[in-house]
Amino acid sequence: MPSPPPAWVQALKPAGPQGSELLAQERAQSNVDVDKLAELLHTKEALDRQQHILSILESEKVFDKSENYTLGRTEKIQRALGKAKRLQQLAVQHKWSQDDYYMANDLLSEPTPYGLHASMFLVTLREQTTPEQKKLFLEPAAKYEIIGCYAQTELGHGSNVRGLETTATWNPDDKTFTMHSPTLTASKWWIGSLGRTANHAVVMAQLYVGGKNYGPHPFVVQIRDMQTHQPLENVYVGDIGPKFGYNTMDNGFLLFNKVKIPHVNMLARFSRVDKETNKYMRPASHSLLYGTMTWVRSNIVLQAGSVLARGVTIATRYCAVRRQFQDRDGGKDAGENQVLNYKMVQVRLLPLLASMYALHFTGRGMMRLYEENQKRMKGAVEAGQDKRGAGPEQLRAGADLLADLHATSCGLKALASTTAGEGLEVARYLLKSARAVLAGKGTNNDTSQILQTYLSRREKGASFDILEEDKDIVAAFAWRTAHLTFEALKRRDVEKRSWNSLLVDFWRLSTAHSQYLVVKNFYEAVTSPQLTSELDPETLSLMHKLFRLYALHTLEREAGEFFSSSAVTTRQISLAQSNAVMKLLDEIRPHAVRLVDAWKFPDWQLDSSLGRYDGEVYPDLFRRACQNPVNDLVFDPYPWNENVLKNSAPKSKL
Amino acid sequence: MPSPPPAWVQALKPAGPQGSELLAQERAQSNVDVDKLAELLHTKEALDRQQHILSILESEKVFDKSENYTLGRTEKIQRALGKAKRLQQLAVQHKWSQDDYYMANDLLSEPTPYGLHASMFLVTLREQTTPEQKKLFLEPAAKYEIIGCYAQTELGHGSNVRGLETTATWNPDDKTFTMHSPTLTASKWWIGSLGRTANHAVVMAQLYVGGKNYGPHPFVVQIRDMQTHQPLENVYVGDIGPKFGYNTMDNGFLLFNKVKIPHVNMLARFSRVDKETNKYMRPASHSLLYGTMTWVRSNIVLQAGSVLARGVTIATRYCAVRRQFQDRDGGKDAGENQVLNYKMVQVRLLPLLASMYALHFTGRGMMRLYEENQKRMKGAVEAGQDKRGAGPEQLRAGADLLADLHATSCGLKALASTTAGEGLEVARYLLKSARAVLAGKGTNNDTSQILQTYLSRREKGASFDILEEDKDIVAAFAWRTAHLTFEALKRRDVEKRSWNSLLVDFWRLSTAHSQYLVVKNFYEAVTSPQLTSELDPETLSLMHKLFRLYALHTLEREAGEFFSSSAVTTRQISLAQSNAVMKLLDEIRPHAVRLVDAWKFPDWQLDSSLGRYDGEVYPDLFRRACQNPVNDLVFDPYPWNENVLKNSAPKSKL
Repeated sequence: MPSPPPAWVQALKPAGPQGSELLAQERAQSNVDVDKLAELLHTKEALDRQQHILSILESEKVFDKSENYTLGRTEKIQRALGKAKRLQQLAVQHKWSQDDYYMANDLLSEPTPYGLHASMFLVTLREQTTPEQKKLFLEPAAKYEIIGCYAQTELGHGSNVRGLETTATWNPDDKTFTMHSPTLTASKWWIGSLGRTANHAVVMAQLYVGGKNYGPHPFVVQIRDMQTHQPLENVYVGDIGPKFGYNTMDNGFLLFNKVKIPHVNMLARFSRVDKETNKYMRPASHSLLYGTMTWVRSNIVLQAGSVLARGVTIATRYCAVRRQFQDRDGGKDAGENQVLNYKMVQVRLLPLLASMYALHFTGRGMMRLYEENQKRMKGAVEAGQDKRGAGPEQLRAGADLLADLHATSCGLKALASTTAGEGLEVARYLLKSARAVLAGKGTNNDTSQILQTYLSRREKGASFDILEEDKDIVAAFAWRTAHLTFEALKRRDVEKRSWNSLLVDFWRLSTAHSQYLVVKNFYEAVTSPQLTSELDPETLSLMHKLFRLYALHTLEREAGEFFSSSAVTTRQISLAQSNAVMKLLDEIRPHAVRLVDAWKFPDWQLDSSLGRYDGEVYPDLFRRACQNPVNDLVFDPYPWNENVLKNSAPKSKL
Repeated sequence: MPSPPPAWVQALKPAGPQGSELLAQERAQSNVDVDKLAELLHTKEALDRQQHILSILESEKVFDKSENYTLGRTEKIQRALGKAKRLQQLAVQHKWSQDDYYMANDLLSEPTPYGLHASMFLVTLREQTTPEQKKLFLEPAAKYEIIGCYAQTELGHGSNVRGLETTATWNPDDKTFTMHSPTLTASKWWIGSLGRTANHAVVMAQLYVGGKNYGPHPFVVQIRDMQTHQPLENVYVGDIGPKFGYNTMDNGFLLFNKVKIPHVNMLARFSRVDKETNKYMRPASHSLLYGTMTWVRSNIVLQAGSVLARGVTIATRYCAVRRQFQDRDGGKDAGENQVLNYKMVQVRLLPLLASMYALHFTGRGMMRLYEENQKRMKGAVEAGQDKRGAGPEQLRAGADLLADLHATSCGLKALASTTAGEGLEVARYLLKSARAVLAGKGTNNDTSQILQTYLSRREKGASFDILEEDKDIVAAFAWRTAHLTFEALKRRDVEKRSWNSLLVDFWRLSTAHSQYLVVKNFYEAVTSPQLTSELDPETLSLMHKLFRLYALHTLEREAGEFFSSSAVTTRQISLAQSNAVMKLLDEIRPHAVRLVDAWKFPDWQLDSSLGRYDGEVYPDLFRRACQNPVNDLVFDPYPWNENVLKNSAPKSKL
């Protein structure tokens, strides 16, 4: 490490008010009860857990973050495995629950080579195995005697799961499956934990029985030797190389050259090949196979809110410390203005602050739905197993719920990550629901209801009071979604337009529907008994303001669609933009720092100079700069000298 | 490097039509004359230069790109200096012109530690020195005997140049300046080539003469020993550490503890301190000092177009090779569809393809303006110097032009890079012009004219035919800009709203103005004598389609402002969206690959599997994966083993 700066440098301070003074001032001007709000967002239990786990991690040198951005890929991934091992040792030593373990990973904020083992591999084994398979695979996996991954995506196929090329062919003679990769594009690709770490994989492959293809199914396949860790024969496996921002994970590729696995290696909770009859046994519903992906998507929405919250925490604190330019209307002697005081900054930052609350409440709502559904399914399946194969109605009811959750989770994932593909699932679902409503077969779920409301009121028009009534804002979002649904349906069913020409409409529809869901979830949260009873009136009113800011800012950004669906008038939009949103920015501004403080990200987790809780931005930036290892190098700067370093070996060694 | 894959892996091919076949098919279905179009975009001279320089670089092992993403920061920057040195050696050896040298850097596509020396340092010395200073600084700098950088930004001040804290105080007794950093925030920060490479810096510092502050001025300061390369006494300098995507450059910090420099080190072409009278000699116009930054901004617009073009080239070729899902309206046996055929992909990609042409033509227009202006200024200054201090009118005329170019370049830089701050310059400039027009003092420059046109026709309305007439599209963009200008002016001058409350309006105004400039430049290019005479009718018509796609897509995205300014009707927007844009996508689609081919990026420059000219995406991705050095590691995967590698030293060494 470079030597410390000389005394005259160490004596220097930032000009003007110090960061710590500015943040103290920010915190003094707001009465938001940060601890209370934090408990409502995360629960007291989670906050206590965070404190406890943090104290353990901070004291372990292996988790030091100071070289995270300077190391090369090979060093980085070795250290990441070191961290993963230590986390697992601590988990055993301290008897961590699963939530404790997830918390530790969250605080570390860096994917490790155990990442996919600890999530997708274990979840899949837990959900899709028979009792026999649990003993064989899940139990050793839980003890890290087996290290696994989840191999679905291929070089040639990502979203289109039905297009996967890897095959699993049933051999009636010796009661095995042959795993095979017929082409280069059949190579598994992007599979986390596969590249260097896993010795087993859950492989999604096209099942062939008696020459017939039954679609993608999951198989457990051993890929590396348990002692030498070398790939097994006819398995070609490795790391796919450096990636944008994910270099502590060994995302891998995998090819099979006719590898045989036993019958028991096909995950058989929902469907299986009968060993005696050599017949394929169909699951109650095909969508059951995709349960794991639904869980992943729900998690992505929740994580998106958390990642956004980290960014907004850092940006808000920095914008309160960073000062730039005098206010042009201020006097000549006015000091420089906090960047957070500029309307231009507020209009970019505060809607994001509102969004992180919106995504959080939405993610929580979805997770609740997923867990309820899992419980119901579990009951149905267990009832079915007791009776050896019965319970199909309950299973089907569960599958219908899962279809709804699947569509919703696809749309919200698309919204949260701005990918478009999965949004189509939602458009498809909405069109199906609209057809049912038009045929008088609507149900009483929320989607049916908003479509029915629209139909019944379409003639007399909307006339929502978005500027005064919060519930009317929600209604306006529902109205726009219903309008776009029936428009798209007309184009498809009446005008017979091609699917391809409607994709842009479907994408707009999916976005509109997901925005409606977020607005609705946010509204339900701020009017929920929990928040209304536990928050002081001032903070509760601030939550309503965040709701309105999120909703009106979104409405303004999508103004065209709200006009054309007649959900609002141009006059309303113009007032929302020039008055309502500007007023909300003024009202929320003084509370911005406390509103991010309530997320309780520890400094150790954020690892950010700009986002420090104490506001000491500049000294910390400078300290990190001085310590960075490039400052140990002494360049020879002249082009005619071969060596790049003073007194180094000739350049050729590089 | 890992050993090559076994024979059964090497025998595998991607499924379905090969990438090379798909791209051949794409190129066969279009008649665009790629070579002709390339010449019009880049000139024959530049294309020949590219070929020539490329052949030299490709044969030098030092420029190998294969480890660019796997190395750690300290190795990366050492290699980058090695590349920079070799480039300079080649430049001397082959007697490269400046354009040759820039081309070599462009092909390398990686900033090197000589980057700021070769651009900002040399440009500043060339533009802001006296003949004596040219001998003293510019001549050795051009020979790399002096290596320099441009130190303006400070830890506490970026955009607000007037707020810089570094001081340069004139000492009448010994005729020196004292350079000093009074605070930590005065530290120079983010300065390219400063961290480890430069031995000199152009330092922007507040000039104090006789206790009075004359604002920021440029000084040349030696910072490191010419032999040992160690920092000079009372200079604290170093590298600021890893950054997002710029780690081959040694961006640095710099603090002075009362360092004295000679009188001649103040760059004195435009302003100076008189050695005899100890008086500050004012420049003809203060804005002259900012010439270098204007050049940089113009360059950023041109570069933004080029960077966008690289991304679009890669995306377009990959979208033609990547196939996913069957068309839902196609038959059951239809193969998977090229991703480029999906409307959803076209609507995202093809407007970007149009934008890269738009930005290119706009950037070229701006550079032309900058160069013309520089020539005029040079003439004026030389005339003035001959007469010892005359020529102020010519200088002032040059400065007025520069002010216009300054505002325009700020706005376009903001548009091209989506930073908002500099857009304010434009808003300020437009308001000033609008005040002049209202006072009957408009000039006949373009800005005045569009404001006058709007005023004269405001009563009877716009009625542009944007769906049929290209020039009416340009007029609609001008109309919207003028409308927003007068709206903003009313709020500021009549309603006396605060500057802060109007920042969002100003930002919108700046965006609108810059979009108008791009649309106008694009229109002028496609109707220019050069394009109309040299392109075949089919390709020329395609250029018009790209213009319309860029313009109508932008118009659709900003629909709200076009409505409310009455530049267009809601009916027109709706038709543009559902018919015109969709039709343009259909018409441009078959030519997409040839339209990116015309940019002539060599594979070596793009260094991208997805963007390969030959379409062999999957084999190249797989080859790179197999060769990545992480595959040399054999992990010990079990948490209870301390070692992360099989047969490695204990983990503690990490």
